[in-house]
Amino acid sequence: MKKWVPAASGLLAGFMAATVFFADFSTGPKGTASNDTANKSNAEKVYVPYGELDEYYMLSSGGHSGQLFVYGLPSMRKIRTVPVFTPDPATGYGFDTKSKEMLGGYTWGDFHHPAISETDGEYDGKFVFANDVANNRIAAVDLSTFHTADIMEMPNMGGPHAGTFVTQNTEYIVMPTRFSVPIGKEYAPLDEFEEKYKGVVSMVTFDQEKKDFDLAYQIMLPPWSYDLSDAGKKVSGDWIVMTTYNTEFATTNNEINASQNDRDYIVLLNWKELEKKVAAGEYEEVNGAKMIDPRKHKGSIYALPVAKSPHGVDVTPDGTRFIASGKLAPLMTVFSFEKAFEAIKAGDFETEKFGIPVLPYDKVVEREVDPPGALGPLHTQFDDRGNAYNTMFISSEIVKWKVETGEILDRTPVHYSPGHSTATEGDTASPDGKWIVSLNKIAKDNFLSVGPSHPESMELIDISGDKMSLTYTAPVDPEPHYAQTIHRDKIKTIKIYEKDENREHSVWKQEDTRIERKGNEVHVYGIAMRSKFVFDAKAERPDEIKVKQGDKVIIHLTNIDLDQDITHGFGIMDHDLNYEVQPGQTSTIEFTAEKAGTFPIYCTNFCSALHQEMSGYMLVEPK
Amino acid sequence: MKKWVPAASGLLAGFMAATVFFADFSTGPKGTASNDTANKSNAEKVYVPYGELDEYYMLSSGGHSGQLFVYGLPSMRKIRTVPVFTPDPATGYGFDTKSKEMLGGYTWGDFHHPAISETDGEYDGKFVFANDVANNRIAAVDLSTFHTADIMEMPNMGGPHAGTFVTQNTEYIVMPTRFSVPIGKEYAPLDEFEEKYKGVVSMVTFDQEKKDFDLAYQIMLPPWSYDLSDAGKKVSGDWIVMTTYNTEFATTNNEINASQNDRDYIVLLNWKELEKKVAAGEYEEVNGAKMIDPRKHKGSIYALPVAKSPHGVDVTPDGTRFIASGKLAPLMTVFSFEKAFEAIKAGDFETEKFGIPVLPYDKVVEREVDPPGALGPLHTQFDDRGNAYNTMFISSEIVKWKVETGEILDRTPVHYSPGHSTATEGDTASPDGKWIVSLNKIAKDNFLSVGPSHPESMELIDISGDKMSLTYTAPVDPEPHYAQTIHRDKIKTIKIYEKDENREHSVWKQEDTRIERKGNEVHVYGIAMRSKFVFDAKAERPDEIKVKQGDKVIIHLTNIDLDQDITHGFGIMDHDLNYEVQPGQTSTIEFTAEKAGTFPIYCTNFCSALHQEMSGYMLVEPK
Repeated sequence: MKKWVPAASGLLAGFMAATVFFADFSTGPKGTASNDTANKSNAEKVYVPYGELDEYYMLSSGGHSGQLFVYGLPSMRKIRTVPVFTPDPATGYGFDTKSKEMLGGYTWGDFHHPAISETDGEYDGKFVFANDVANNRIAAVDLSTFHTADIMEMPNMGGPHAGTFVTQNTEYIVMPTRFSVPIGKEYAPLDEFEEKYKGVVSMVTFDQEKKDFDLAYQIMLPPWSYDLSDAGKKVSGDWIVMTTYNTEFATTNNEINASQNDRDYIVLLNWKELEKKVAAGEYEEVNGAKMIDPRKHKGSIYALPVAKSPHGVDVTPDGTRFIASGKLAPLMTVFSFEKAFEAIKAGDFETEKFGIPVLPYDKVVEREVDPPGALGPLHTQFDDRGNAYNTMFISSEIVKWKVETGEILDRTPVHYSPGHSTATEGDTASPDGKWIVSLNKIAKDNFLSVGPSHPESMELIDISGDKMSLTYTAPVDPEPHYAQTIHRDKIKTIKIYEKDENREHSVWKQEDTRIERKGNEVHVYGIAMRSKFVFDAKAERPDEIKVKQGDKVIIHLTNIDLDQDITHGFGIMDHDLNYEVQPGQTSTIEFTAEKAGTFPIYCTNFCSALHQEMSGYMLVEPK
Repeated sequence: MKKWVPAASGLLAGFMAATVFFADFSTGPKGTASNDTANKSNAEKVYVPYGELDEYYMLSSGGHSGQLFVYGLPSMRKIRTVPVFTPDPATGYGFDTKSKEMLGGYTWGDFHHPAISETDGEYDGKFVFANDVANNRIAAVDLSTFHTADIMEMPNMGGPHAGTFVTQNTEYIVMPTRFSVPIGKEYAPLDEFEEKYKGVVSMVTFDQEKKDFDLAYQIMLPPWSYDLSDAGKKVSGDWIVMTTYNTEFATTNNEINASQNDRDYIVLLNWKELEKKVAAGEYEEVNGAKMIDPRKHKGSIYALPVAKSPHGVDVTPDGTRFIASGKLAPLMTVFSFEKAFEAIKAGDFETEKFGIPVLPYDKVVEREVDPPGALGPLHTQFDDRGNAYNTMFISSEIVKWKVETGEILDRTPVHYSPGHSTATEGDTASPDGKWIVSLNKIAKDNFLSVGPSHPESMELIDISGDKMSLTYTAPVDPEPHYAQTIHRDKIKTIKIYEKDENREHSVWKQEDTRIERKGNEVHVYGIAMRSKFVFDAKAERPDEIKVKQGDKVIIHLTNIDLDQDITHGFGIMDHDLNYEVQPGQTSTIEFTAEKAGTFPIYCTNFCSALHQEMSGYMLVEPK
């Protein structure tokens, strides 16, 4: 893993080699399951028969599993667990040299909010970004391979819960802190909270060619908690909005002490102006990062009172408004960007906090929406007809309402306690209004019981008609917090890796395989193919690796079966080692042969009728 | 993790505390989705609407993921990943002290063949056993909690691929080796293969009260590979059958060299007679294990020629026959236990191998079944009408045939390359003939593409009628090898853990929470509850943990929310630590506070409307 340093090196520029052979579903023979055929039963709406494909990818955070969950909609079948922050022996992630280095010794992450890269405010299907609240990291998953391409740890942060969100052309990935900490997390007693603790927003860039993160600049904020953020679109395209809680500066018993104020704040940032400030040198260097301090570098950052302890804030598809939900108030609040801009232009501020001018609530609010009896509004999604859909954690429902008027159009119960929801193309400038999935925190007895530790529950709701219609319910491992749902036509994957004869450490012909000793290092340049390993074709036993106790063993393995879905695994008994090579891929594993003895090597991924015979031995001669 | 030692200690007697509150689905309000209603469409057959439950649990191996996958049938929804051999931050498995010790430093396993505990040859739904081919381990998952209860590493083994299979009253769990190795895996060049390498079968017992494995005895066999095994039933209840390959003693290029002989062997063991031998002292001690060597301790072990390179062997539900499939022959072979017993009684042996009498093929075979054009038969499942179902890896199909006559009744294509299949109640004395799931190794373009690394494919087939009917297809993470499918009525889970005030380290009242220092150890006796942590109720900040750099920190946490599905997580920033406590559970985590600084603590599992406020700080004072 990279820790961010001022001049980011290019050493870890990309996890995967250059890739080819794009799968093109749009021209394929396969049909589409969708909800726009009239008179389908719920069973028929979600059934995807053999020979057809799901219409949408739902890319869901896996929470404290650290992984990305890929589901198909409308079938709600789980297609893949993509390892991001946690090692995964099923794919060898965290075992081979490159991914192990990328993980940097961490064995988990807390992934909350995926963000698909955008072009002109539309998902472009190239990458999905991930935040790790627990260890202050950001990751990018390459959607041509569904492999994690880069991970970076950021300085000065205290848990980037309010990320990842992308600006409308993926200029920045926004990562605001959740917990305020002393800058650098140095020791400072909680009595010094207001003085020494800070909130920090990281503005991260991603080079899509090099698959490489960089930290552009950071913004220092008062020691509030930053919960969620969203980027503006079109008229508001230069802006970012963020919710805050614990503006009370509570340091203990936050369930009570952080819920005292009637209003917390939305923070508004103009990233384009801040970018100019940084270019002009208006920042301080803090642990290597370019840090903007609003007490010294005035302008471009504003606050706005909002209903107490808000959770989500979401910009409308047309970019004209942002909607904040006060989880301890029963209502959603619609704010107008235009009004905010007017107030800013007029210098119409009611006070200042930490050098940040506070806009008057009344001057920016457009409407409060208060569905009778609804409780615990958290997050908002949108359709293509000007409607908003709000999850209600406490009253366990989704409320549909008209953004222009605040009119409540429909309500449907969900089971139970929804956090986020995800609508098809829901965070884009043009959501398509087909489906919404409610990501419920509590399943109770919805599914076959698996004991005290329950799955979460995801409920698929048809939003294509006037009324919402609960269509299907699926269990899910802990714990999706947020998901984005993208049409399948936007994701172009490769099927196999290119046969690149110049790739470092790759071997493509059996006669080129070899085992080379350099001092106490043994370098194996091997091949995996149906149905054998070839480590050294010239040896008496080409599938034997002979080393001496204490040797460092470096095994480069190329899968020369250039055939879709022919994966080979490589496991060594009693060595806690397993990795795999995809068709055309070269990958490396390193270890020290500490134990003398005889250890079978075998293909761990069933590959052919003679898969059981795809094995060899590592012989470690005693010292 | 326990390494097996001759006198197994009771220290790790059980992972989880005593449990109560069984969920009783049989009396619940929820209905059943099934395939026995006439005229249902495929979509209707698999659709389980909100308010109903799946009818079957499919307990699937997760292969080199190391985990158990729980699917619901007929919906094919994945309900849970149960961590077994691999750490899982989603549930804290491998992070808390007990599960970390149980894993013994390993970060993966290669789990192939689950076996549900049996009573009178029927799944009893109490435990499911798991083998780890890569690291010679066995595990038990308690099906009242779906938590791993015990793991044991076995001596003298080279990859127990042919396990786990249970005898009809779970007297033994059978674990035969796949790779022959020098006993103890000491160094021995492959030139000494025939002389020094051996196959070993472990006969493992499991104390269901203490949740504790023991190794009863082992059997030394010639250095063949042992692929799969099955236990007899009723008339054959004292017997175990195992397939072998590489009876050629090949040590390299096994895809060719291990496929030379026209016949390999089935090995038959009478475990009841062997048990008596062991009781009578007829064994040698080898690395602490009681080892039966057929060259010295004659009788009770026999071999039988079989079609070359067989994979599976399966005993019929009535226990009268066993069916072996020659993966490199195009046929299934039906053998008669009665004929085998007669040949043994008559001493009718054609030769002897490694002290093992070899029965004549012709005297034991009942029938060869050779479906025209079918290739690569691997495994057999059964229904309630005397029919067998065989997966054909190469011709990608399932063949249904009548065991009594060998008549081919039906064939259906699957997509593609099936390994095992699992029928509902399929390995019991009374399979119910409702469904079979084909566990396919190759998915190609069955699902939305996730790049070069494909999901596997599981196909649900309705076998309730005269003809098989392909009903649904579901993707799955790598890599199910085998699964067993049990009716939901047989699994009785608990919903929450008992409030046991005598449980070590548990704290049930806020006023009893405390932080105690003992030298450089800091012991925290804390509570997790909606929506706060209480580590020391008497402190100024009850949710703060103050330690000194270098302290060993031991945190005991009890979840006092005795309410179904209210789980609390516990993560500390930048410490690679996360675990969780289920309702009523007490669990412990230990670490050394190596870094001075200020580190947020927070609940990682969304638990309430004020979940975001459920946090605190760990302050580590510099040395």
